[in-house]
Amino acid sequence: MIKSGSFITFEGGEGAGKTTLINRLAASLTNQGKKVITTREPGGTSEAESIRRLLVQRDAGEWSPLSEVLLLYAARSLHIDRVIQPALDNGHIVISDRFTDSTVAYQGYGRGMSLEKIQEIDQVVTGGLKPDVTFILDVDVKIGLERSQKRLSVEKGYSSTEDRFERMDISFHESLRAGFLEIAKSEPERCHVINAEEPLDDMFNTIQNIVKKHYV
Amino acid sequence: MIKSGSFITFEGGEGAGKTTLINRLAASLTNQGKKVITTREPGGTSEAESIRRLLVQRDAGEWSPLSEVLLLYAARSLHIDRVIQPALDNGHIVISDRFTDSTVAYQGYGRGMSLEKIQEIDQVVTGGLKPDVTFILDVDVKIGLERSQKRLSVEKGYSSTEDRFERMDISFHESLRAGFLEIAKSEPERCHVINAEEPLDDMFNTIQNIVKKHYV
Repeated sequence: MIKSGSFITFEGGEGAGKTTLINRLAASLTNQGKKVITTREPGGTSEAESIRRLLVQRDAGEWSPLSEVLLLYAARSLHIDRVIQPALDNGHIVISDRFTDSTVAYQGYGRGMSLEKIQEIDQVVTGGLKPDVTFILDVDVKIGLERSQKRLSVEKGYSSTEDRFERMDISFHESLRAGFLEIAKSEPERCHVINAEEPLDDMFNTIQNIVKKHYV
Repeated sequence: MIKSGSFITFEGGEGAGKTTLINRLAASLTNQGKKVITTREPGGTSEAESIRRLLVQRDAGEWSPLSEVLLLYAARSLHIDRVIQPALDNGHIVISDRFTDSTVAYQGYGRGMSLEKIQEIDQVVTGGLKPDVTFILDVDVKIGLERSQKRLSVEKGYSSTEDRFERMDISFHESLRAGFLEIAKSEPERCHVINAEEPLDDMFNTIQNIVKKHYV
């Protein structure tokens, strides 16, 4: 059984299927009588959502990798203080769509920012807070981007221009994928790589088994 | 004579008269044949200006001191990389309305954020870049706020709601003033306190004399 006050994150590139899996896991845990909240990064509070708009909107600006990291940590510090930590303290299971690993993958491996600098900023801001379990959804870059394009074309209005990272070139997305796999390799206890080219039901079963095992 | 490639900042609370003095100093140095750029924080690039809007607009949100510091440093890193450092490298005199001392005063002394944490973030982001000369305009808090209110009521449209900090209570502004004076005391070589209750002409003469002396 999964214990209360746990922090689970889903990571991965574009079009890996995070949202669907998060919703299914949340529903399943809720059905088991758990108190669950789902959230996302960058976001989780109205202030952090306004930072999100600066970062992910098409034509939001030319951010340097360092300025992106600082914006992400400004949002993250609010997210932790006002959403994640209070929920954990109240015994909730917190499931977040992205967290620090995404910063390491996107701004570190993807955009070339020094991993040591990200680590230093992380230490100052979060004190090194880590999720209990992280699922890294791994998918071939081209397949992921195709799926992501489909999703964006279905969404209406505002969020359909949330495609700044999708529009980066293929080598960026390849570095990103390699980065997530490096993170998984360096923290095998916490990180579980899920093959996101499998059918959703299979992925979900794998995830459920890991969640169960992790908390036996 | 003031040398090229110098970095001069103006600091102080609200209504101290920074803008007027910066414009006069810039005009005077330009008349002496110097290449001068004036800029401001938070701001200086379009991306940094959009961070500014998040911070100074009335009802921009409830930012924690740490999240404010991270937003300010996101803006500052762009400001340094794209404006300040290139201008210094090209032999310009850069005059900025606010820089790091404002973060120490507003978020540190004013809002109670740990000065050590600000220092750590400063080191990671700027490598500890300091102005060559800083003028700290010191004015009685009530007089300053009265002047600032007048200015805001004259400005039209957008910027007239740039009053988030003006609307903080008087004790915040007292801490701010005390903070700036502490900074000046700790770095007497760089920082010059200017009595901003004196007539503008007198203040400007004092500033000009310091600029001349500093670079003889």
